[in-house]
Amino acid sequence: MTPAFEALQKELKRLPGVGLRSAERMAIHLLLENPGAAQTLSDAITFARERVRSCSNCGNVCEEERCSICEDSRRDDSGSLCVVEHVSDLMAIEKSGAYRGRYHVLHGKLSPINGIGPDRLNLSNFEARIAEEGVKELILALPNDVEGEATCHYLTDLVKTESVEVTRIGFGLPSGASVLYADSGTLKSALDARQRY
Amino acid sequence: MTPAFEALQKELKRLPGVGLRSAERMAIHLLLENPGAAQTLSDAITFARERVRSCSNCGNVCEEERCSICEDSRRDDSGSLCVVEHVSDLMAIEKSGAYRGRYHVLHGKLSPINGIGPDRLNLSNFEARIAEEGVKELILALPNDVEGEATCHYLTDLVKTESVEVTRIGFGLPSGASVLYADSGTLKSALDARQRY
Repeated sequence: MTPAFEALQKELKRLPGVGLRSAERMAIHLLLENPGAAQTLSDAITFARERVRSCSNCGNVCEEERCSICEDSRRDDSGSLCVVEHVSDLMAIEKSGAYRGRYHVLHGKLSPINGIGPDRLNLSNFEARIAEEGVKELILALPNDVEGEATCHYLTDLVKTESVEVTRIGFGLPSGASVLYADSGTLKSALDARQRY
Repeated sequence: MTPAFEALQKELKRLPGVGLRSAERMAIHLLLENPGAAQTLSDAITFARERVRSCSNCGNVCEEERCSICEDSRRDDSGSLCVVEHVSDLMAIEKSGAYRGRYHVLHGKLSPINGIGPDRLNLSNFEARIAEEGVKELILALPNDVEGEATCHYLTDLVKTESVEVTRIGFGLPSGASVLYADSGTLKSALDARQRY
C-alpha cells in the first residue's frame, strides 16, 4: 500500500456501512481496475455538493429552497406530520406508499451518551411548523431503541402545549415474519404492543 | 430525491459491494449529515488518482515505477511467484504472513461468458518474468470457482515450455470451520483435496 492509497481507503471507510476491507476493495476498484470511475465519482460528489441542500422546511434533500414534498400541493393536507431520523427513512416510507402527508427530518436522534442533544437535531423551526401548518397528528417514525424512545419523549414534551395528538409507529413482528425466528427484543416489542383482536 | 443526488447515488452504487440502499445512505451522509466528508473524499480520490499507479512489474499498487514488494531486496528470492486475481488478494496474503516471495496480479480472471479473455488480464510481461526472474515455482492463488479453474489452465499452458513447477493453493475447510456448517461446494473441494494422513 502507498500513502495516497491509504488516505483514500481511510476516507472511504468513513462512509456508513464501509469497513476496512470494503474500503480497500473500493480503492483498488477506483484506482486500478476502473480508473474512469474515480473521476466520475469525484465529479458526481462535487456536482451534488454544489446543488444538493437540506430543505429549509423539513430537512429532506432538495436543490431549491424547499423540497419537492413540501412544495407538492397534492400531498395529504389533513394535518399529519411524520418525524423521521434520517432522509433515508423518509425515502423508505415514500417507497412503501403507506403515507401521503408531510415529513420532518431530524438528521439524528437524542443520544446523551454520545453528546447528541436537542441542539444537534433539526429542530429550529419544528415548533413553528406545528403551529403554522396546523398539525393535528404528529407521527413519530423513530427507531425502536433507547435513543428513539428518548427522542420521542423530548418531542412529546415540546408539543404538549399545542392541541396535537402524538402517535408513534407500531412495533412488533415484521411483515412475513414468524415468531420462531424473531429476536427477543422484537418479541418483547410485539407483546408490549398487543391489541384486542 | 433530486437529479444531482441520484447521479451521486448511481456513481456510489458502482463501487464493489454497494447496493442501491447503501448508496442512498452514503449520499445522504456525504451531502447532508457530514458535508465536510464529501470534500475530503473527493480530494482523496483526486490525490490518489494522481499518485497511485499499477506496478509495471507485478500489477500491485505503487506510487513509483515498481512497487515496494518488487523493490524489496529482503523478499524471498528462492524462485517462487504467486499469481493472484486482485491486489486485495495480495494484501490478504501479505497480512497472513504465510508467503514472503513475489506476486503477479492479474486484475481479473478468465470469464468467456463475460467476454473476459487473456487480453484483458495483466499478462503482457508474465512470460518474460517467468524467464527473467528464474521462477521455479508458480503458485496459483486464484479463486476456487469455474473462472479460477479456467485461468489456472490457461496459465499452466503458457508456462509449460519452461522448467517451472506449477502449484495451486489448497481447497477445503477454512481454519476453525466444522464439517457441519460447510457448504456442499466446500465439502466437495475438501474431499477432492484429501491427503494421506
